[in-house]
Amino acid sequence: MENIRVGIIGVGNMGSAHAALLAEGRIEGAVLRAVADLRKDRLVWAADNLGSSIRRFEQPAELFGSGEIDAVIICTPHYSHPALAKEAFAAGLHVLVEKPAGVYTKQVREMNEAAAASGRVFGIMYNQRTNPLYAKLRELVQAGELGEIRRINWIITNWYRSQSYYDSGGWRATWAGEGGGVLLNQDPHQLDLWQWITGMMPSRIRAFCGFGRHRDIEVENDVTAYAEYPNGATAVFVTSTFETPGTNRLELSGEKGKMVVEDGKLTFHRLRVSEPEFNRTYTGGFGQPECWTIDVPVSGTASDHPGIIRNWIEAIRHGSPLLAPGEEGIKGLMLSNAMLLSSWTDDWVTLPIDEELFYTKLQEQVRNSSSLKDSGSARTLDISGTY
Amino acid sequence: MENIRVGIIGVGNMGSAHAALLAEGRIEGAVLRAVADLRKDRLVWAADNLGSSIRRFEQPAELFGSGEIDAVIICTPHYSHPALAKEAFAAGLHVLVEKPAGVYTKQVREMNEAAAASGRVFGIMYNQRTNPLYAKLRELVQAGELGEIRRINWIITNWYRSQSYYDSGGWRATWAGEGGGVLLNQDPHQLDLWQWITGMMPSRIRAFCGFGRHRDIEVENDVTAYAEYPNGATAVFVTSTFETPGTNRLELSGEKGKMVVEDGKLTFHRLRVSEPEFNRTYTGGFGQPECWTIDVPVSGTASDHPGIIRNWIEAIRHGSPLLAPGEEGIKGLMLSNAMLLSSWTDDWVTLPIDEELFYTKLQEQVRNSSSLKDSGSARTLDISGTY
Repeated sequence: MENIRVGIIGVGNMGSAHAALLAEGRIEGAVLRAVADLRKDRLVWAADNLGSSIRRFEQPAELFGSGEIDAVIICTPHYSHPALAKEAFAAGLHVLVEKPAGVYTKQVREMNEAAAASGRVFGIMYNQRTNPLYAKLRELVQAGELGEIRRINWIITNWYRSQSYYDSGGWRATWAGEGGGVLLNQDPHQLDLWQWITGMMPSRIRAFCGFGRHRDIEVENDVTAYAEYPNGATAVFVTSTFETPGTNRLELSGEKGKMVVEDGKLTFHRLRVSEPEFNRTYTGGFGQPECWTIDVPVSGTASDHPGIIRNWIEAIRHGSPLLAPGEEGIKGLMLSNAMLLSSWTDDWVTLPIDEELFYTKLQEQVRNSSSLKDSGSARTLDISGTY
Repeated sequence: MENIRVGIIGVGNMGSAHAALLAEGRIEGAVLRAVADLRKDRLVWAADNLGSSIRRFEQPAELFGSGEIDAVIICTPHYSHPALAKEAFAAGLHVLVEKPAGVYTKQVREMNEAAAASGRVFGIMYNQRTNPLYAKLRELVQAGELGEIRRINWIITNWYRSQSYYDSGGWRATWAGEGGGVLLNQDPHQLDLWQWITGMMPSRIRAFCGFGRHRDIEVENDVTAYAEYPNGATAVFVTSTFETPGTNRLELSGEKGKMVVEDGKLTFHRLRVSEPEFNRTYTGGFGQPECWTIDVPVSGTASDHPGIIRNWIEAIRHGSPLLAPGEEGIKGLMLSNAMLLSSWTDDWVTLPIDEELFYTKLQEQVRNSSSLKDSGSARTLDISGTY
């Protein structure tokens, strides 16, 4: 089978890393053929670093119409993901989109419809699904090891970003440029894993966002969200960008015990008899079921971005299943949108959310955006060590 | 100096333990002289176990008027604490009241006023203040080691109670009998420590209580509360009685790092330069201040109930300061009341709370209480290992 010819739109922080990976021949069955970027300096970078055989375009439409590629990876600012993906599908291309899927679910729903209509392979860069800790946790939960889940608690505050980070790009942390803050830029993986691991979406959410806390930015960088599920379970999701050292601790509590992921370890506190059974039969007042603390063996390392790209290429070439189907991008975004909407309305938000209302509220933020900064000032950061 | 002659009202679960302690002469400067209990079987227990010299009364008023005692420990059901304390102060007695101070703050405010007017020594059984872990944490926070606190997160779900526990007393877990659930029975220590350690009370609270979750009870046994502080800090407090094994993890995040108490250990993640200073001066985009992980040495063991009783006796005899002044009982109860009120009204509650509104709402619960069970069915549980 021929190699899949790949193009990349947006060779900034993430796109340049993916481009280098492909250019170095590290993705079997795929070859980098072209890149597109509106910024001339990034095209100069591409010429200097990716080899002279790589075609370079300013406009995405030129790339789509070039006949040079079968598939495209979209690494542009968040807002543009759905529109570019729709154009790509229309051009008959397979698509891998960076996270988040988009900024608002209305737009992402249209992208999903275009993907379905196209019959092309649509993936999303949820590389944390390749993290063996979370993959193992999901496998255990889906196998019923916890029984029914009763509580979820994720403290994910290890996204420290100094003011200098926010000042590194005019589009950063603005309603007009990014369309959100920590929920949209840093947390898409966690919001996805939350629903992917548990297989559950909340019925309603009440969230409390702090905007520009300890930073000169306009978007949310401090979030506490409470969620309720159809089965009676509850959840708390806490995230911020100004705490250091932050915490990344996920706790799932269920009928058969508790699982905790923290410090790179998965611990299962496993009950010998389930809580409901113990409760039904125990007569002693105080007392609780016998519990074993198990360090769950987790093997392998995260295949990360290369793993997601390989999986997507495999799916294109052989029809194998996607680890992260693009259509699922809407779920994490729905959680993110619900949290912002709950804060803006100071009220509960029932899921699925009112997409029109969210869109209207977002447009208000964009119109009132005090920091429609010079987007030409964007500079590319060294992202080694980030997600 | 003469020994302080102590009486105990209510020799059920806690009162019988305190009585035995005093009867065994383990509280220097104090001697047990009398007990009172409405339940004849508990007076039989007292005769059998505390010695024949101990006077026994059915009615509290008989004890107060007996001339046998200088001081009284109140270990009756929650509702009766304030009224009995007021009677005791009126009789010129020093008072140590079991937690919680009462069921609603209006009642507790009156008790505090009576205490102040009496000039007697008024303590509350916040024995967790003697826990060296929390005492050390408080000392560090009050010494400014964290700088300003920005986030508090307490998961305290290790209160497992089976249905058989709830069935052990007709008053248990009823609005009429206890006036509340996990917040009033299990969490008073944590609600106190929360404000005692940080020295801060929230400006407003939004809480989500589940009532009778997985148990045949009418009160709250599943709580998630979000709190905001005047300085911009936020907090989450999560508690339940149906999870096993539960979690007890307290995290404080501040300008100078993070402190975590879990598994009997206090860990300080200490920044070499404070976050605000780093943020002001750093220009590198990604990056964060150097952090040292410190296992804070914590010496000693909790002196616990005996420690609080000794401290109270010392205060009576020598005027030494109380570790847990009775007047401070209203603070934790205010947090507890605010959480219930927020759930009942499905809205924010601003602190200090509307005491009349809480009282009215509580009375509605009491009137609608479907489980005004036979309170004569109470049996005394073995509480060794509980707080």
